[in-house]
Amino acid sequence: MTHHQDNTMPDIDSYSLSRRTVRRYSPEEVPAELIYRLLEEASHAPTTGNMQLYSVIVTRDDEGKKALAPMHFNQPQVTGCSAVLTFCVDLNRFVRWCEVNDAVPGFDNLQSLMYGILDTALFAQQFNTLAEMHGLGCCYLGTTTFTAPDIAKALNLPERVIPLTTITIGYPDGESAASDRLPIDAIIHEGSYSQYSDLDIRRIYAEKEALEESRRFIEENAKQTLAQVYADVRYPRSNNETFSAILAEFIKDFLPRKQ
Amino acid sequence: MTHHQDNTMPDIDSYSLSRRTVRRYSPEEVPAELIYRLLEEASHAPTTGNMQLYSVIVTRDDEGKKALAPMHFNQPQVTGCSAVLTFCVDLNRFVRWCEVNDAVPGFDNLQSLMYGILDTALFAQQFNTLAEMHGLGCCYLGTTTFTAPDIAKALNLPERVIPLTTITIGYPDGESAASDRLPIDAIIHEGSYSQYSDLDIRRIYAEKEALEESRRFIEENAKQTLAQVYADVRYPRSNNETFSAILAEFIKDFLPRKQ
Repeated sequence: MTHHQDNTMPDIDSYSLSRRTVRRYSPEEVPAELIYRLLEEASHAPTTGNMQLYSVIVTRDDEGKKALAPMHFNQPQVTGCSAVLTFCVDLNRFVRWCEVNDAVPGFDNLQSLMYGILDTALFAQQFNTLAEMHGLGCCYLGTTTFTAPDIAKALNLPERVIPLTTITIGYPDGESAASDRLPIDAIIHEGSYSQYSDLDIRRIYAEKEALEESRRFIEENAKQTLAQVYADVRYPRSNNETFSAILAEFIKDFLPRKQ
Repeated sequence: MTHHQDNTMPDIDSYSLSRRTVRRYSPEEVPAELIYRLLEEASHAPTTGNMQLYSVIVTRDDEGKKALAPMHFNQPQVTGCSAVLTFCVDLNRFVRWCEVNDAVPGFDNLQSLMYGILDTALFAQQFNTLAEMHGLGCCYLGTTTFTAPDIAKALNLPERVIPLTTITIGYPDGESAASDRLPIDAIIHEGSYSQYSDLDIRRIYAEKEALEESRRFIEENAKQTLAQVYADVRYPRSNNETFSAILAEFIKDFLPRKQ
């Protein structure tokens, strides 16, 4: 079966509405040349002042994937995928360029970090979209910022290179379900922001809360509402604060010294 | 001339390699329904735990665009475009959802901010790609984080809503040039990060430095190297630090209290 010969997109709209995260992959390898070509195309995504403040570490060997797995809480897609792509904010290359060219950069601050975060996120998302359009299955790993110092060590990242997000890729194994989304008018504000009334909130989240899956989450976690599942179980304060402290220490050169 | 009837994409690869930023637009309006449809499609971009921690403020009237223009340093595309889309990290809607559902969120920390930043950047980039594929011209405005508090005031943003980036859209007026990009092997690291030698740096940036435009920048700014133009003129330490202080104050609830 040939997966990657067809570069035509019959219908952008139906792609974008039906796209889904793919966590289970067939054993077939994604050719390195396809990964490189997609990364090259993705590098044409918009970037701050054309600085391209990012790097990507491509992990294709089993050894490397096994080493990264615990940093992603052993989610099975890390060892089960064809390649793990760790997208990093990279201020190092820019600073090195300045050093070689008698320039003195002032990039040890919050805005410079923001340039890099946006550049990296846009690059990663462009890759994700192009890969999906080429028939690959992709999954973002939000664990990347939780364990950034460990990932940096595993991937030999120098100073000023910060793991931001990770995408696992492979050819999809079976079907995946598309995720639900809030009604679009919940996201869009015309002209200026309208604060949500209690009634708005109930309406916006009604469909999500009514999903079979949501009701199962509530029951399994012995909660009363889906919001409690999110606030107490999936993204509890204790985890958010623990991982924030780790990340803050890791990126401290870019954060304000005192407040 | 009908711009937006053709949803087929003849060749993804040639789109992605030739895409370009468009700063000049024809007077023709982009229909609101097209903007909404593209935003709806973009909302299917990946999002942290399916939380969709973003909102977008759509500014289509001249009054609104004029009000935003100074916050984007009066770049002409702000008043010259058909619509200004301000993409915001939105932790407010999630917190309101918790409030209405007897849940207590712990989202006043760095990781929560990162969830929101990634969600918002991925949503914005998915919109940008889909809009470009539909023949619209788009331009990101990096000024958004420089003047975040002023934009928040102009757009009536409540607490926990942070302007992250802005995209101006319209039908392209004339041709735009594609930006140069670094050779892709400068971005990709196989297995682990390889630090750049001086020679690597010279090779990676050689093509960019040799561009007619780069040489003009150096001459106009009376500098010796292109890196000096970036470090001294385009992104000088003084600006980076000034705008970092403004942003840090604005998002202080999400940053560590002391270090």
